[in-house]
Amino acid sequence: MKIDLKRAAAVLTEMDNILIIAHHYPDGDTLGSGFALCRGLRKMGKKANLACSHEIPHKYDYMWRDLPALDFTPENIVAVDTADTQLFGERLEKYADMVRLCIDHHGSNILYAEETLLDVTAAATAEVIFALLKEMGIEVDKDIADCLYTGIATDTGCFKYSNTTAKTHLIAAELIGLGADKDIINRLMFETKSRARIEIERHALNNMEFFLNGRCAVMFISLEMIEKSGADEGDLEGLSPLPREIEGVVVGITIREKGDNQYKISVRTGPEVNAAEVCRLFGGGGHPRASGCCLEGPFDEVKNALIEAVRQKIGAK
Amino acid sequence: MKIDLKRAAAVLTEMDNILIIAHHYPDGDTLGSGFALCRGLRKMGKKANLACSHEIPHKYDYMWRDLPALDFTPENIVAVDTADTQLFGERLEKYADMVRLCIDHHGSNILYAEETLLDVTAAATAEVIFALLKEMGIEVDKDIADCLYTGIATDTGCFKYSNTTAKTHLIAAELIGLGADKDIINRLMFETKSRARIEIERHALNNMEFFLNGRCAVMFISLEMIEKSGADEGDLEGLSPLPREIEGVVVGITIREKGDNQYKISVRTGPEVNAAEVCRLFGGGGHPRASGCCLEGPFDEVKNALIEAVRQKIGAK
Repeated sequence: MKIDLKRAAAVLTEMDNILIIAHHYPDGDTLGSGFALCRGLRKMGKKANLACSHEIPHKYDYMWRDLPALDFTPENIVAVDTADTQLFGERLEKYADMVRLCIDHHGSNILYAEETLLDVTAAATAEVIFALLKEMGIEVDKDIADCLYTGIATDTGCFKYSNTTAKTHLIAAELIGLGADKDIINRLMFETKSRARIEIERHALNNMEFFLNGRCAVMFISLEMIEKSGADEGDLEGLSPLPREIEGVVVGITIREKGDNQYKISVRTGPEVNAAEVCRLFGGGGHPRASGCCLEGPFDEVKNALIEAVRQKIGAK
Repeated sequence: MKIDLKRAAAVLTEMDNILIIAHHYPDGDTLGSGFALCRGLRKMGKKANLACSHEIPHKYDYMWRDLPALDFTPENIVAVDTADTQLFGERLEKYADMVRLCIDHHGSNILYAEETLLDVTAAATAEVIFALLKEMGIEVDKDIADCLYTGIATDTGCFKYSNTTAKTHLIAAELIGLGADKDIINRLMFETKSRARIEIERHALNNMEFFLNGRCAVMFISLEMIEKSGADEGDLEGLSPLPREIEGVVVGITIREKGDNQYKISVRTGPEVNAAEVCRLFGGGGHPRASGCCLEGPFDEVKNALIEAVRQKIGAK
């Protein structure tokens, strides 16, 4: 059931012993939202922890290094920025049927939680958390502002993507006023490339393929490339926008090898094509301009199926 | 003489037949500021044109395609975003001693104009122009908002660089509210890389050299690379932040070959080093985190002189 801000605030205020779930392959928004909420709940005297199936990339250390895990038995499960229980990942899938509250901004949210606070106009779930913390009367301190700014900045490509609104900028101004250390955060998120990252970017650019008269670009990230470059999960984040950024490209596809004949697909589109519609054809989903899905099969079949789907969407010959 | 907003508004209100000068190698801020001002002055019924020594890169076409040059003899010269008359470029240097008003945000401004409206706290000159247009009572329409948003977005790396303030975000929110087409602008400025751009980026990354225990990175853009890749001025913009974005790099230097033994240098730094101080050693200047200078001599001598200057600033062995 979808609920409003006021109801969500009431639900959270009644809870204690809260486990906050961030999605697997965690990004800045699920972590920023989760840690901001965790910090806010602790300020209210509640016990709260954040859990994620995957290890948290080191670049996010600043969000939680002073936030020790508390010892308690979870009584209430709250998922943040997680549209589907499939995104809980292996370690946390046991909680799939037990989610009391979900806070999200994905239009593809399948409403798996008992109650869901969903704002699809928000550029990031962190925007929703900010409004929620205010509704609950929790003071947003510098540490919370850091987490929320991180969520918003990472989900908008630092205010570059089309999900950014005037409201997003107003919130950013407010968070900076509350002490968010935007310079350090932006430098960590957007201006610090490891040599491994540069290496894998170079490989990926070298292997880029173009289809449909240059309107579709496909970038492949193989396990071998990842191993050779020494890239970790943090290094790989933010690669998927690259193919779509090339002049003339309407649909950019990133195919990342996850295992034997297993691929994770990212689709980024210009306004001409709905990325979520493309991914829904393969059981995935997401946002209109940025979506994802998982595919199995030999690489060439996976690639061709994707290109064929794009061909039909853009009506190309 | 430095003047305030009110005085600058009065000076402009009294003028007619105005030639607005943008700096050579024009960027989004000098053009966005100049065209916004030009549009505002024309809305007041004045004759105004913008002039630039270099051709305006095509990606900025939307700022001026509906703004035909008017036929008049310039009576008042106004320079925007131009810290020094050296930056007028060859075609416009004849105006160097005739500048009635300069509007700028560079701390390195040498106050060459009769009167100068200088706000070094502004992330972009476009912020100053926005305030000035308001002060003059000129309605900021969608076209002006597009120009101003462009100036702010390009000078802040889309709100990523440390010059961005809470005020910058508030202005961005206001400009979006006034109709600035941020999606189209951001896509053009930050998400449209020509294949030539990708080619030259790859060359530049391949040739990157590291000094001073990895704290200084030097990227060289040769005339040969530019020619081979087919890159134009627009493709080359925004390359200079790359070296500094590599993990561990405190000072990133881009050396661009301009002619026989002639080099244009860009210096980008982290908070540990003042880029303007480094460039001032070579007769250049700019902002604390982003500055430039021009050097002559054999390439290796130029490079070594720069590295030596950096070594002294960061106290490296």
